[in-house]
Amino acid sequence: MSGVFITLEGTEGSGKSTQIALLAERLRSLGKTVRTLREPGGTPLAEEIRHLLKHHAAGRDMTAEAELLLMNAARAQLVREVIRPALAAGEVVLCDRFYDSTTAYQGHGRGLDLEFVRHVVDYAVGGTRPHLTLLLMVPLAVSEMRRLKRQGQLTGKIEQEIPTGTIPYPTDETDGRLLTDRFEQANREFFQRVEAGYRALAAAEPQRVRMIDAARGVEEVRADIWRAVEPVVTVTR
Amino acid sequence: MSGVFITLEGTEGSGKSTQIALLAERLRSLGKTVRTLREPGGTPLAEEIRHLLKHHAAGRDMTAEAELLLMNAARAQLVREVIRPALAAGEVVLCDRFYDSTTAYQGHGRGLDLEFVRHVVDYAVGGTRPHLTLLLMVPLAVSEMRRLKRQGQLTGKIEQEIPTGTIPYPTDETDGRLLTDRFEQANREFFQRVEAGYRALAAAEPQRVRMIDAARGVEEVRADIWRAVEPVVTVTR
Repeated sequence: MSGVFITLEGTEGSGKSTQIALLAERLRSLGKTVRTLREPGGTPLAEEIRHLLKHHAAGRDMTAEAELLLMNAARAQLVREVIRPALAAGEVVLCDRFYDSTTAYQGHGRGLDLEFVRHVVDYAVGGTRPHLTLLLMVPLAVSEMRRLKRQGQLTGKIEQEIPTGTIPYPTDETDGRLLTDRFEQANREFFQRVEAGYRALAAAEPQRVRMIDAARGVEEVRADIWRAVEPVVTVTR
Repeated sequence: MSGVFITLEGTEGSGKSTQIALLAERLRSLGKTVRTLREPGGTPLAEEIRHLLKHHAAGRDMTAEAELLLMNAARAQLVREVIRPALAAGEVVLCDRFYDSTTAYQGHGRGLDLEFVRHVVDYAVGGTRPHLTLLLMVPLAVSEMRRLKRQGQLTGKIEQEIPTGTIPYPTDETDGRLLTDRFEQANREFFQRVEAGYRALAAAEPQRVRMIDAARGVEEVRADIWRAVEPVVTVTR
């Protein structure tokens, strides 16, 4: 493998999408071939699985067990169909969420058996692991405030579709819009567990997982990200 | 759990569908509430996963790893949404294929890591196991002959859609039609491994898994099945 695999992680409202776009732009300006991906998705099959995950939300009509297995089916496909070939071709792969999201949200957040979560993730990735993971952390209050801003864009119709107590797996920034105020309130503990899960991951693998304070301005976060990325990406034209 | 859970297994052309229908009829005539299911499927989500499994065949554009995880996502959903409530209500649940198919086809047939196959199946079923498994065995030559008969119903269009070397997971009798002659030839060894896998399962759990010679006439097979089922199903009105 001659490429570099970097994943971005974090709670909702941490600005992953913005930072991925900025990082990709900078790497491209240095002559790198960059591939940006998001999980779940990135292949025709994985996008169909993403659709299932969105339309049968866990806690509504999808069991947590089925959700975990679907997420990892999409991951197994993405790794083999896209990530490995891209790395073999020397590309820089930037992925918005990867297996740390599963550990944080489904393992710590939902309380699924962490030992099995590890087993299924190991199986899905089959040794393909990120060289670097950027963990964008914002205080829960900031995360909630940013989500509330997004909710301002909600139509009444969409709000009615959200059942109380449902905790959608965060598939991208847009999904944050599906979180209603009442839902937020009820699930604050869930997000606290997710945050604690992320912190535990960073503590367990400090070399790979770099925590970045994402409550600051875009430029400051971008500078911190570049300090972590630069040594990992060999900058040659 | 007051109900009874019976699964039917076997290679293609073993007559599972016919025998499930006959068994359900007999049980109903004795006053039992019977629920017949097939894997993958049986819930809205699991049927959508079935659709994915059919339209992204493993070996074509689906990896074997994704297939294994999708199959078990559908199973996790079916167990919790349908099988457990039915058993709790005292029903007799008859399921056309269950986890032994995964072990035989994906573990032994495709050569996936049997240890992980066991892990993921254990997770998907979460302790919900069949009281009895009827394993309908036909010699490979008989199985092939019966499949060839079905293939007579194939249209040219469907045959053209089948790539060489693809081994679809057998989701029901109809799927047998997707196996072309050339495909059969190339994959005879695969089916030999599946058969050996089934025999190993029967040898490991002789109390649960009953091998039945299904190369005989429908009535003889039906009588054998009933001899195995009668002691398991308490026949009271």
